Amino acid sequence: MKPITQTLIILSLALLLSACFYERSNEPLPSWNESQAKQAISRFIENVTAEGSPGYIPPGERIAVFDNDGTLWSEQPMYFQLAFALDRVNALASKHPEWKNTQPFKAALEGDLKTVMQGGEHALLELVMASHAGNTTGEFSQIVKDWLATAKHPMSHRPYTEMVYQPMLELLDYLRANDFKTYIVSGGGIEFMRPWTEQVYGIPPEQVVGSSIKTKFEMRDGTPVLVRLPELNFINDKAGKPVGINQFIGRRPIAAFGNSDGDLQMLQWTCSGQDMTKGERFCLYVHHTDAEREWAYDRDSHIGKLDKGLDEAKSKGWAIVDMKQDWKQIYSPE
Amino acid sequence: MKPITQTLIILSLALLLSACFYERSNEPLPSWNESQAKQAISRFIENVTAEGSPGYIPPGERIAVFDNDGTLWSEQPMYFQLAFALDRVNALASKHPEWKNTQPFKAALEGDLKTVMQGGEHALLELVMASHAGNTTGEFSQIVKDWLATAKHPMSHRPYTEMVYQPMLELLDYLRANDFKTYIVSGGGIEFMRPWTEQVYGIPPEQVVGSSIKTKFEMRDGTPVLVRLPELNFINDKAGKPVGINQFIGRRPIAAFGNSDGDLQMLQWTCSGQDMTKGERFCLYVHHTDAEREWAYDRDSHIGKLDKGLDEAKSKGWAIVDMKQDWKQIYSPE
Repeated sequence: MKPITQTLIILSLALLLSACFYERSNEPLPSWNESQAKQAISRFIENVTAEGSPGYIPPGERIAVFDNDGTLWSEQPMYFQLAFALDRVNALASKHPEWKNTQPFKAALEGDLKTVMQGGEHALLELVMASHAGNTTGEFSQIVKDWLATAKHPMSHRPYTEMVYQPMLELLDYLRANDFKTYIVSGGGIEFMRPWTEQVYGIPPEQVVGSSIKTKFEMRDGTPVLVRLPELNFINDKAGKPVGINQFIGRRPIAAFGNSDGDLQMLQWTCSGQDMTKGERFCLYVHHTDAEREWAYDRDSHIGKLDKGLDEAKSKGWAIVDMKQDWKQIYSPE
Repeated sequence: MKPITQTLIILSLALLLSACFYERSNEPLPSWNESQAKQAISRFIENVTAEGSPGYIPPGERIAVFDNDGTLWSEQPMYFQLAFALDRVNALASKHPEWKNTQPFKAALEGDLKTVMQGGEHALLELVMASHAGNTTGEFSQIVKDWLATAKHPMSHRPYTEMVYQPMLELLDYLRANDFKTYIVSGGGIEFMRPWTEQVYGIPPEQVVGSSIKTKFEMRDGTPVLVRLPELNFINDKAGKPVGINQFIGRRPIAAFGNSDGDLQMLQWTCSGQDMTKGERFCLYVHHTDAEREWAYDRDSHIGKLDKGLDEAKSKGWAIVDMKQDWKQIYSPE
């Protein structure tokens, strides 16, 4: 054997060995304890990816949908997008002197969250319209990025984009490594999420489905813009989630992940597919049980209420994550 | 050298040689004559994919959008979806005795296309609602597939899905081979296209944007369904195309392909991006100039009118395909 051939063979062996080592040191889901939920996830992924097996599902059909608030990042003590809306109302207040005497703006400017919430859905919608519309899509995207760069969570004092769940990031990676296409399907604003989901979750803008206001195409000095109108387009929540999934993705997911009753129809839509087409389906609820490291809430919560969904998950055998028991850590280290 | 090593080296060389040969026999765009349009396409793709060059655009941002009717398949003597709607009205007629005496259904049942068209947009919308709604998304998808399996074009007598442009199929392949994500952005019905675009164009359902009616989530005997309602949701045409692109894709394309004034705003939106972000943009109009092999029409046509768009393409230097001159063949051989 010539020296060069020998060297090549030794190099190949070294590469092979290091690949094996890399594989072993990169076990999926390292932040997950050995729980039922973790085992169910692994079993599902192995089943649908095993070529030749009856449960095999081709890569193109491996669509996984994730709720965002409370499923991929925290949602307490208020939806992070509401914090954005309140900050935005404050930033715009000087242009709207009338807000000082009009609810819900008066309460928003005074930081009186209780009064804001008492105004119900209508008050929240008014705040969102006033704070999210009236600019172009390009401008709004920049406003969101600028806000995220400086805003801090009121209790942890960390940037909001650091309050994402480390175990869920690992789950997203694990699915994508197995040729899943991962989507966000959230009640939150689609244009509030798209500027940062790729960097934070590895989910590109075109795989984000959410609620939206209308936009209008306009020419400004010969340059086309899309102007954001104070008019509701679509609420991607509850029974709206399967509608949004069908509208944007056009095929039924094979896996769905949520944390509240607002995700129930999405999970029903995903896991009922099992009767109609070949292969397994997977549904999972994240149950907020960790008052120390995160928050503990379910059936009686005003945010992220999980009541009917918890019953249905138990009766249908969907996976349930007990955050306190199942997750070694909640967030990435600072 | 041991025999096995020798064999391996010979095998590798053989593989390398066959790869080179394969490369040469697979020049992109074989059905395109050496025209300005072909050169412009190749130059654009080379520019945005050349790593380190000032025009380089990373793969994730390589979004290309295609109109469908008249850009990827023919649209004469009527939009193929209208042929579907008319066949569907006939198939449903026995359940609707009142249609015999009500326009536009009477004309549709009598095959009187002239009267149907005289009813304008309103008449067409009525036909679409009656023929496209009232079923579930799963049922409608099957109805479209069944129709395409047997329906024939009234003049060529070929299946509609064989009336796709061979040069455009090659262009889609060429773009995807260079890590472009290819989308359809059509005025046609989103759920009319999704059942077949993957097989015919290699474009999966989630990369199809189109017009739509509303759907509603419902439980039927414990099984969730999405019911198609006779209510307009969104018209993805003209100024609606940039709105649809922003809504579904969430980022601006870098290349757009159309054939009519209905695509003008999509091309403006795509190619104006050049001023705002780095890298080149590409806009192309397919000009129907071949009365023998396809159809010849532009400024005065009722279907696929190309008037303002043609002027703007010339003034802005967008690429224009002269079908008669530039394409060696229109459709694939039967």
